Amino acid sequence: MQLEKYKIQSHNEDVLAGHQRKLAYTLSEVENAESIIQKLVDFQIAIPSWALGTGGTRFGRFSGGGEPRSLEEKIEDVGLLHSLNQASGAISLHIPWDIPQNAQAIKVLAAQHGLKFDAVNSNTFQDQPNQTHSYKFGSLQNVNKAIRKQAIDHNIEVIKQGIELGSESLTVWLSDGSCFPGQLNFRKAYQNTLESLEEIYAALPDNWKLFLEYKCAEPNFYSTTVGDWGQSYSYVKKLGDKAFTLVDLGHHLPNANIEQIVSLLLMEGKLGGFHFNDSKYGDDDLTAGALKPYQLFLIFNELVEGMDARGMNHATDLGWMIDASHNVKDPLEDLLQSVEAIMTAYAQALFVDKKALEIAQEENDVVRCQEILQNAFRTDVRALVAEARLRAGGALNPIALYRNLKVRENLIQERGLKAVSTGL
Amino acid sequence: MQLEKYKIQSHNEDVLAGHQRKLAYTLSEVENAESIIQKLVDFQIAIPSWALGTGGTRFGRFSGGGEPRSLEEKIEDVGLLHSLNQASGAISLHIPWDIPQNAQAIKVLAAQHGLKFDAVNSNTFQDQPNQTHSYKFGSLQNVNKAIRKQAIDHNIEVIKQGIELGSESLTVWLSDGSCFPGQLNFRKAYQNTLESLEEIYAALPDNWKLFLEYKCAEPNFYSTTVGDWGQSYSYVKKLGDKAFTLVDLGHHLPNANIEQIVSLLLMEGKLGGFHFNDSKYGDDDLTAGALKPYQLFLIFNELVEGMDARGMNHATDLGWMIDASHNVKDPLEDLLQSVEAIMTAYAQALFVDKKALEIAQEENDVVRCQEILQNAFRTDVRALVAEARLRAGGALNPIALYRNLKVRENLIQERGLKAVSTGL
Amino acid sequence: MQLEKYKIQSHNEDVLAGHQRKLAYTLSEVENAESIIQKLVDFQIAIPSWALGTGGTRFGRFSGGGEPRSLEEKIEDVGLLHSLNQASGAISLHIPWDIPQNAQAIKVLAAQHGLKFDAVNSNTFQDQPNQTHSYKFGSLQNVNKAIRKQAIDHNIEVIKQGIELGSESLTVWLSDGSCFPGQLNFRKAYQNTLESLEEIYAALPDNWKLFLEYKCAEPNFYSTTVGDWGQSYSYVKKLGDKAFTLVDLGHHLPNANIEQIVSLLLMEGKLGGFHFNDSKYGDDDLTAGALKPYQLFLIFNELVEGMDARGMNHATDLGWMIDASHNVKDPLEDLLQSVEAIMTAYAQALFVDKKALEIAQEENDVVRCQEILQNAFRTDVRALVAEARLRAGGALNPIALYRNLKVRENLIQERGLKAVSTGL
Amino acid sequence: MQLEKYKIQSHNEDVLAGHQRKLAYTLSEVENAESIIQKLVDFQIAIPSWALGTGGTRFGRFSGGGEPRSLEEKIEDVGLLHSLNQASGAISLHIPWDIPQNAQAIKVLAAQHGLKFDAVNSNTFQDQPNQTHSYKFGSLQNVNKAIRKQAIDHNIEVIKQGIELGSESLTVWLSDGSCFPGQLNFRKAYQNTLESLEEIYAALPDNWKLFLEYKCAEPNFYSTTVGDWGQSYSYVKKLGDKAFTLVDLGHHLPNANIEQIVSLLLMEGKLGGFHFNDSKYGDDDLTAGALKPYQLFLIFNELVEGMDARGMNHATDLGWMIDASHNVKDPLEDLLQSVEAIMTAYAQALFVDKKALEIAQEENDVVRCQEILQNAFRTDVRALVAEARLRAGGALNPIALYRNLKVRENLIQERGLKAVSTGL
Repeated sequence: MQLEKYKIQSHNEDVLAGHQRKLAYTLSEVENAESIIQKLVDFQIAIPSWALGTGGTRFGRFSGGGEPRSLEEKIEDVGLLHSLNQASGAISLHIPWDIPQNAQAIKVLAAQHGLKFDAVNSNTFQDQPNQTHSYKFGSLQNVNKAIRKQAIDHNIEVIKQGIELGSESLTVWLSDGSCFPGQLNFRKAYQNTLESLEEIYAALPDNWKLFLEYKCAEPNFYSTTVGDWGQSYSYVKKLGDKAFTLVDLGHHLPNANIEQIVSLLLMEGKLGGFHFNDSKYGDDDLTAGALKPYQLFLIFNELVEGMDARGMNHATDLGWMIDASHNVKDPLEDLLQSVEAIMTAYAQALFVDKKALEIAQEENDVVRCQEILQNAFRTDVRALVAEARLRAGGALNPIALYRNLKVRENLIQERGLKAVSTGL
Repeated sequence: MQLEKYKIQSHNEDVLAGHQRKLAYTLSEVENAESIIQKLVDFQIAIPSWALGTGGTRFGRFSGGGEPRSLEEKIEDVGLLHSLNQASGAISLHIPWDIPQNAQAIKVLAAQHGLKFDAVNSNTFQDQPNQTHSYKFGSLQNVNKAIRKQAIDHNIEVIKQGIELGSESLTVWLSDGSCFPGQLNFRKAYQNTLESLEEIYAALPDNWKLFLEYKCAEPNFYSTTVGDWGQSYSYVKKLGDKAFTLVDLGHHLPNANIEQIVSLLLMEGKLGGFHFNDSKYGDDDLTAGALKPYQLFLIFNELVEGMDARGMNHATDLGWMIDASHNVKDPLEDLLQSVEAIMTAYAQALFVDKKALEIAQEENDVVRCQEILQNAFRTDVRALVAEARLRAGGALNPIALYRNLKVRENLIQERGLKAVSTGL
Repeated sequence: MQLEKYKIQSHNEDVLAGHQRKLAYTLSEVENAESIIQKLVDFQIAIPSWALGTGGTRFGRFSGGGEPRSLEEKIEDVGLLHSLNQASGAISLHIPWDIPQNAQAIKVLAAQHGLKFDAVNSNTFQDQPNQTHSYKFGSLQNVNKAIRKQAIDHNIEVIKQGIELGSESLTVWLSDGSCFPGQLNFRKAYQNTLESLEEIYAALPDNWKLFLEYKCAEPNFYSTTVGDWGQSYSYVKKLGDKAFTLVDLGHHLPNANIEQIVSLLLMEGKLGGFHFNDSKYGDDDLTAGALKPYQLFLIFNELVEGMDARGMNHATDLGWMIDASHNVKDPLEDLLQSVEAIMTAYAQALFVDKKALEIAQEENDVVRCQEILQNAFRTDVRALVAEARLRAGGALNPIALYRNLKVRENLIQERGLKAVSTGL
Repeated sequence: MQLEKYKIQSHNEDVLAGHQRKLAYTLSEVENAESIIQKLVDFQIAIPSWALGTGGTRFGRFSGGGEPRSLEEKIEDVGLLHSLNQASGAISLHIPWDIPQNAQAIKVLAAQHGLKFDAVNSNTFQDQPNQTHSYKFGSLQNVNKAIRKQAIDHNIEVIKQGIELGSESLTVWLSDGSCFPGQLNFRKAYQNTLESLEEIYAALPDNWKLFLEYKCAEPNFYSTTVGDWGQSYSYVKKLGDKAFTLVDLGHHLPNANIEQIVSLLLMEGKLGGFHFNDSKYGDDDLTAGALKPYQLFLIFNELVEGMDARGMNHATDLGWMIDASHNVKDPLEDLLQSVEAIMTAYAQALFVDKKALEIAQEENDVVRCQEILQNAFRTDVRALVAEARLRAGGALNPIALYRNLKVRENLIQERGLKAVSTGL
């Protein structure tokens, strides 16, 4: 299904008065509100093709119905999101879960929905049917050269797919590592992985970036071969100027100071982008901002400060993507909540009084530093986010409209109750 | 020094117009604003006598000057805070750091500042000069009956001191435990501790409460003898109706769900009160709300819901206290920030639409549950907190006034730059 | 396949000389060696029916072939293990993964392999085909009474299955909980769960026990409704004398002192049994003793001391079971390693000089306490474990024999390379 | 006091028979025993001058008496240790806690005890009396250039002290960081620290090394400016060939895989040395090997493998030091236990069958990999460690002899019961 524009307009008219009252007050509170709104309009967060269905826990997957059954329907779903919030104008494909049969047709379809193709993602953490070698003992790290070769070739194939779609970056996430002490020689695993990455890097077009994720652990693991930002940094430093570290918020040991990591990677010119989600215990892949909204704000505070210091373009110089899993929420509603939370954190960070903060830092006035950050965080900027949506042609209240229009019910009718999305 | 009322009034007049504009808008957003304001006026958070000076890290203590040199000056400091925010109307004494020489005179002094005496705190985690036995190997748990007896007697003495001051509760925090596997027989340590607590409990007046803190670890420790809420619960359950668990936010293992613990202790009728602070890595004793304001809100959400379900009085049926340490901030400014953060979280929790939440929970509408909580959290309720202060006679902006009046400079002049507060 | 006795004897003869040399030395070092060997002979660890196939990570399952395709073949596999180590004389069934079609025939088959039926395990964390209600939002905690009823009925059905097999305990592990703040009312979830457990408990035969597991978290979760030992304890305390807490080593927050929890649950008379495994980051379900062998020893040290203090029978008064997942190892080899590690830790704990330890504890001689524990741990007691196997009719080196006999190759021939075990 | 050689010989004669019996058996089990013994003889672990007195917790310091009152007495204490175990032949000084008044005399004294001077340690985490600027807000990171200068000058002064003593390395540990979000600009703090380190590095003699420690957190902190191995690595990489990362086992976030970090730093040629200790919750500074002996072994396994791969000399190419705190044990006994545990782990690592392990790794035979490592760990190699001591002229059982000779009692008599060591 596609959302007709008049429905959005009609919804906006219904709630406009309330919005304008809030906006007027917010404009009176937030001096740089106009500039914030414009930046919000420009900011787009990619939706991964694997997050449009119900995700699973270890034991079960409780589908909610109406899930997309094909890449075309996934694009349709992201199009739906984008028409609602005008902030999800890109889709990130996972190969081989979503191999386009006809790249040209897919590009046309995406363009109809106003969507670009963000980073393409390779998969060497699962065996595919008819695959020659198994990744049971790792892919790019494998002790067997033939298996590494197979994984390298897959990544190069993914780059090719991406080129056809107009994507300009490759995200590599590995579940390479070990389950037990002694299983791996850490040094050789590192060196094998580096060699493999070098071959992939060599196949990268000039205008492309390679993003290397790190992750502290997988369930049932003892070590991971790209385990923390330091390891990812040491790989991408060796690879070259087109290689960057990608930060997934859920991939850290307990209590890690992620905002500091973000700041230092930016400083080193090696931050590539983000996978947004939230977590309580591990890599929980929950809705962005659902558990630690202040941390999300602190991260954006570093991003805004650090990107400005390097003269970077907020909207285009880093990769922004959601990487969440939806277990008890409607995936589309969940994604709307994530995008909203990210936009809100970004708006709050843009509202931080940077000059005053710099002065307070220079004076070691810690009380004042806290007041400045918390003032930006506690000020209610949601009307600015809504206004940005309104100006861009989206809905003032996307979830309310989504429910009013019975989108999910329609999708179930179209696709069936048992439709199960391919992917995660 | 004491703060003359006219100075507060003068300050309030200066900033009243701005406040009223914000308040008017907030009133239009928050339906139950009047009720919230009233509850905020009634809510008081006790200040510990040991938190008025500069706290230390393991290695150093970097005093800021003008610290209180006596119990009288500590009362004066809390009086100052209370005159500024009208929400710090109680002081919690730590014995023997702050033994009143003349209880009657101290009571009069406190009353002049509008202060009550909250829980008294015993100390069996340090050896005092001229103490017969050492607590090197624990106090209430000690294998030596004579040492346990000394610790029990100290607690009973603290109760007596408390009775004279009009306090009505005893807080017991133990650093009993062990540093190495094998050092303790856990069972015997538990049983010794239980026996000791029973003797202390027997000395408790009828209208008193005993609060038993738990803590997962101390630096250089392997086990603590009241290590988690389950252990504290099992002790207080055996002790009787006047014994309760006290929750210090910094005393949990990484990732613990504190709000759930709070809810269950309330359900069991065994929650006694709180030590508020914030932390990133361990028991960091940082300003409440400085790092995880959403968690603080979630805790208050459980408190409000749970206390209402049991018909409890928010202001009086639990013990509320700050327990923080001030290393790089002026202690008085830090305490003002903590109280403000606690009040804000409480106001947000009072604004949660409980009926709607209950319905959403019954319908497993998880998206809606999140919207309801986050709406309460993201709405800017600071004007309600300020209005409560205004109505109670406090300052609209306590920190600004504190700085304008150069309170710290005056205290330094009075007490000297090298004045170092007794205590922590 | 079944292992003929003569093959074991033949293997033992081959390696006997080396064993006897080691044993002779160990006997000269370990005064109570004979008593230890006897206790090891008596000690049996149940094997779960779901752990005989290759377990999976989130993303893949890399089967090794020859996995049991039916309950009968699972019993055969446990029989194989038991014939090798004579320490795995029980199987723990998971319903509905392993519903016996003919209980009597299954009992006979098990008896032929020398196996008893240990605890039966219910499953309300997955939806089964044709199930009326979904457990998407929990089972025993569910807001919907009809769903709770379905889960209760399932547990009662599992008890019935267990009675037919001669099992005498029910293990309840719930993945009930929530993914987001606000989703659950913690108190109501607790009370619903308690009510449900009470109905199950009422259906328990007099000679049965109910084991309630706790777990701090599941991936993608925000809270679990039986989250820690304190919660499990508060449930089983209310349920009655037949209800006990079950400890799974992987179910704790980082840094938890599990040995202390074990000691206190024993003291309270509420420890029911164990799920053994090891972990580094979360609930990793790795081979017991593979990562933290000293912790495993410390736990057994508490078990031996605490059970002796209560006059309990080591072999029969608690439930002992492995609960691990095999991802990169042959499941049968992995289970042999787990049993060996558990037996070794038990033997070490039996070797602790308890009288000397008690004296050192009474004297606060911490250095000596550590020397005593570490001496027991560092002494090589593997010859005692081997001797216990030998006397009971097992193999001196089970893994070597397993490989020499090409057991896995035979199983693959019998069952096929693509045989995939039902279960986890 | 000094230990006469005949006392050691007399002790050794008393226990020789038992030792020889154990040794004979161990030699029959451990093929490369002679080579291991020789390596153990060569291996020396430096003792820090600050760890010879009773350490403290946050709240108290419970001295045991007879602590060294001067640098001379500290050297005497280390001399005592070294005469007992012949493995503590170096002392690491902390400036300004232990500034030699007469370097030449101190060198002579140390030489009389057979001691060398290991790394010198600077201190910019405490204010010293009469210090011009305070380190309240950090030292090398400070926003104030004059404060950074003072800290740089102190480090250069420490290098000079070290040159006079014959030390060849400087260890820099900073408690620079922040307590609250917003307090620091992370990037500027990094850049200030780097600049400061560059000035210190420039003052380093050609044959010296600079060791930069990292630490994830301090109590009451929100960020540390050298927070993890990745940060330390990025500093030392920029500094130059004489700069290395120093690993303190207690400075990591929960669950960190330290052995992997060790392996990768070795691979990068940037591992400088170790601070050994053990911990359960945080930076607990407990006796090495007291809680996680298997982890200590795994670390040594990486060290031996990695150093051999680079052709490094085990004894001299890395810095080995204990950094522990003694709260409930006699400091000297505690240090004897730490050295023993480190030697044992080293011996176990030397016993690993590296060829077999390499083959098993190449074949992904994970079961075998575990068997190989655990066989080395479970084999009792303590007789080899004792034999190395014997051959080097130390005592077979250092703690027993220490107690028999009533060393502590003698020290108390010499130095008094209230003698409190300077330092930590």
